[in-house]
Amino acid sequence: MPNQASRSQLAVGLMSGTSMDGIDAALVRLSGPSDEPRLRLLAFDTLPYPGAVRDRLLRLAAGEATTAGEVSQLNFLLGELFAEAALRVCRRAKISAARLTVIGSHGQTIYHQGTPTRESGRQVSSTLQIAEPAIIAARTGAPVVADFRVPDIAAGGQGAPLVPMVDYLLLRDKAKGTVALNIGGIANVTIIPANAQPEDVFGFDTGPGNMVIDALVRHFTRGRKTFDAEGQIAARGRVMDSLLRQLLRLPFLSRKPPKSAGREQFGQDFVADYFLAKRQQRTVDLLRTATELTVAAVAQALEQFVFPRARINRLIVSGGGAHNRLFLAGLQAFLPGLSIELSDHYGLPADAKEAIAFALLADRTLHGLPGNLPRVTGARRAVVLGKIVRP
Amino acid sequence: MPNQASRSQLAVGLMSGTSMDGIDAALVRLSGPSDEPRLRLLAFDTLPYPGAVRDRLLRLAAGEATTAGEVSQLNFLLGELFAEAALRVCRRAKISAARLTVIGSHGQTIYHQGTPTRESGRQVSSTLQIAEPAIIAARTGAPVVADFRVPDIAAGGQGAPLVPMVDYLLLRDKAKGTVALNIGGIANVTIIPANAQPEDVFGFDTGPGNMVIDALVRHFTRGRKTFDAEGQIAARGRVMDSLLRQLLRLPFLSRKPPKSAGREQFGQDFVADYFLAKRQQRTVDLLRTATELTVAAVAQALEQFVFPRARINRLIVSGGGAHNRLFLAGLQAFLPGLSIELSDHYGLPADAKEAIAFALLADRTLHGLPGNLPRVTGARRAVVLGKIVRP
Repeated sequence: MPNQASRSQLAVGLMSGTSMDGIDAALVRLSGPSDEPRLRLLAFDTLPYPGAVRDRLLRLAAGEATTAGEVSQLNFLLGELFAEAALRVCRRAKISAARLTVIGSHGQTIYHQGTPTRESGRQVSSTLQIAEPAIIAARTGAPVVADFRVPDIAAGGQGAPLVPMVDYLLLRDKAKGTVALNIGGIANVTIIPANAQPEDVFGFDTGPGNMVIDALVRHFTRGRKTFDAEGQIAARGRVMDSLLRQLLRLPFLSRKPPKSAGREQFGQDFVADYFLAKRQQRTVDLLRTATELTVAAVAQALEQFVFPRARINRLIVSGGGAHNRLFLAGLQAFLPGLSIELSDHYGLPADAKEAIAFALLADRTLHGLPGNLPRVTGARRAVVLGKIVRP
Repeated sequence: MPNQASRSQLAVGLMSGTSMDGIDAALVRLSGPSDEPRLRLLAFDTLPYPGAVRDRLLRLAAGEATTAGEVSQLNFLLGELFAEAALRVCRRAKISAARLTVIGSHGQTIYHQGTPTRESGRQVSSTLQIAEPAIIAARTGAPVVADFRVPDIAAGGQGAPLVPMVDYLLLRDKAKGTVALNIGGIANVTIIPANAQPEDVFGFDTGPGNMVIDALVRHFTRGRKTFDAEGQIAARGRVMDSLLRQLLRLPFLSRKPPKSAGREQFGQDFVADYFLAKRQQRTVDLLRTATELTVAAVAQALEQFVFPRARINRLIVSGGGAHNRLFLAGLQAFLPGLSIELSDHYGLPADAKEAIAFALLADRTLHGLPGNLPRVTGARRAVVLGKIVRP
C-alpha cells in the first residue's frame, strides 16, 4: 500500500445497519501514514430514526411494494437525517463541520444482492444504499464519500464486507492471529493472521447477529421493545436443540466464503418460517435459541473455514451484540482456546466501530487508495471505494 | 466564468429521456476555453432498450408498484446498457474508450419531484436517475459524471432543466435574441437574450413535447408504433378546439417559471383523463389535438413569459420533435415574427443535442465549473453538477 506524509485530519463516519434503529455518527482524528493510521475517537452519537421513517425503511428492505417515488424521496429525506447526525456529532465535540476533511457515509442499505441473479436476460448483482450524499455535502460543507459497496460489485465482488480493511489497518499484530467479530444485525468476521499482509486477510458473514433476536423481541412485545438488553430475556429460556441443529444445517452456513448475508437470508421470512411457525413454544426458548444460533454459527464458521487455514489467538468483539452477555459467554464456551476481548480495549468502542470504519475508508478513497480486500469480497481486483461528492 | 487553457478532449454524453426508447450516445471533440467551447460531433448512436427493460422502466416511471430490489437491479442493469452505448459510439468512430477524458451520463429518470412535498413530516424534493455510473466507469475505463440534477436540488433548485447552460455556451449571439426549443417527451425552452451573460439566461419546461402523442400512438396501434413519424397520422386529423382550449387552461401552463414537468404531469393519468376518456372521438383528431397542444403551449409560454422580458429574433429547434412537420409548421403559424431553424444548422443535430449537452456538462464538472443556471432552476446558487466516479 502506498505510504503518505503524516497528517492529522478530522473525519466523520456515518452508518446505519440492517437493524435500522438510527444513524451512528463517529467523529475521529486520523494521523500517521495511510497504511499505519492512528485513530482517536473524539465523539460518538446515534440519531434515532423517526418511527415512521424506520417503518418505511423496514418495509422497503423486506421487499414490500413501494414506488420509484418513495425510494427517491426517502433517499433525499435520509440525506437530511444523515447530515443532521454528522452536524450533531460535531457539535458534541465542539468542532465546526467546516473543519472536516471528509465524511464517509455508508448510507442505509435497502437492497443487497451480492451474487448475480437473472434480470431481463442478464446476470446482475447490485446493491442500493440510500441517504443522498449530495445533501450531506450541501448541509455540512464537507466532501462526502458514499456508495462504498458499488465499485466492488462493479469489479465482480459481493460488495461486502468492507470493514475487514479497517480491521487489518487497526487490529493486526505481528505475533497474534486475530479474528475480529462484529455482531450487528448480521455477524461477520475478519481473519487477520499473525504478521499479515493485506492479501492474507479474509472474512465473511457468519450468519445472523441480532437480526433474528430483534425481530422476535419486537414481535412478542408488539414493538414496545426492540432488542433483548444484555440477553436478559433469552437468559430465562432454554435452547431448543432440534431447532438449533436444523438451523445449523442452513445452506448459507456451510457455503464457502466469501459470502454476505442480509435481510434476504435472515429477515422476516426466515423468522416466520423457523420461529413464529412454532406456536407451541415458549417465547423465552425461541429467543434463547435465536441467541445460541448466532454464537453457534460463528463457532461453526471458525471451525470449518478459519482454524484449518490460520492459527488464531484472539477474538475481538464489536457491534451492538458485544453487550449481549449470552453471546460473550457462549463464544467462550464454544471457543475455549481463544482470548475473547471487546474492541473497546483497542480504542474502538463496540458500538462505534462500524461508523469509525467508514470514516477511515472515506479517508482512503479521498487519497485514491483501495478499500476492498479482493479475497474478502471476491472482487477481481482492489478498487477505490465510493463516490466523492464535493459541497 | 473562469477561463481555461485551450485543450482538445474527447467526451461522450449519454442520455435517455422520458420517452424511454433507448440510450442516445454522442461522442464529441471539445476544444477552446471552457466559457467559449468549440464542439464537434464525431459520432452519434442510439442503443434501443430491450422491450422488457423499457416496459419495466415505464412501469416504474408511472409510479406503479415496485420493490427496492427491482430499482437496485435495474440501476446496475442500466449501468451495463449505458456502458454498451458508450462503447458502441466509440467503436463507430474507431476511437478507443480509453482515450475519453470523461463520460457524462444523465441516466434514466424514474422519478422527479422538483418542488417540495411533505414526506414523513418534512418538506422534501428529490430526483432519481438510474444507470449506475460505477458500472459505466468500470466497463469503459473512463471517468464518469452522473447524477447531474441532484446538487441543484440540494441547493434548493428544481434540478432541471440543465441544458440551458449548454444552449448559452453554444447558441448565444451578440445581436440576436434566441429561444432554444427542445422537443423531447417534454418540451422546454432556453431564452438567451442578445449579448447575454449567464445570469440573463432563463428557461423552463413549456409542457408536453412528444409524450402525449407517443402515448396515444402506442395506445391506438397496441404498441406496433411508438411515435407519429413526421406527424403523418395527426396530419389527417382536425384540432378539437374545445378540448384544446380546456388543456391550455391547465394550471401547469400558466404557472410562472421556473418550472419543470415530467410523467407526473403529462403521463398515463393525463392521457387517460383528457384523451382516452373521449371515446366518441376519432383517433386522428385526438392525435392532431395532442400535437397542437405541444405547439400552442410553447407559443402561449413565449407570449406570456418571454416576449414581455426579452427581444427574440430566432427559435432554434432540437429534439425528436424537430422531425414533426406539424410542429414546425405550427410554430411558424403561431410565431410569424420569428426565424425558425433546426439546431442542425449550428452543428447540433436535433436528435443528438441532449446527449451532446451532457458531454459538455460533464467536462464542466471535471473542471470544477458550475453547470446550473440558478435563474433557470431556482437554485440558491450556481453549483458544480454531478458526482465524479473514477474507473
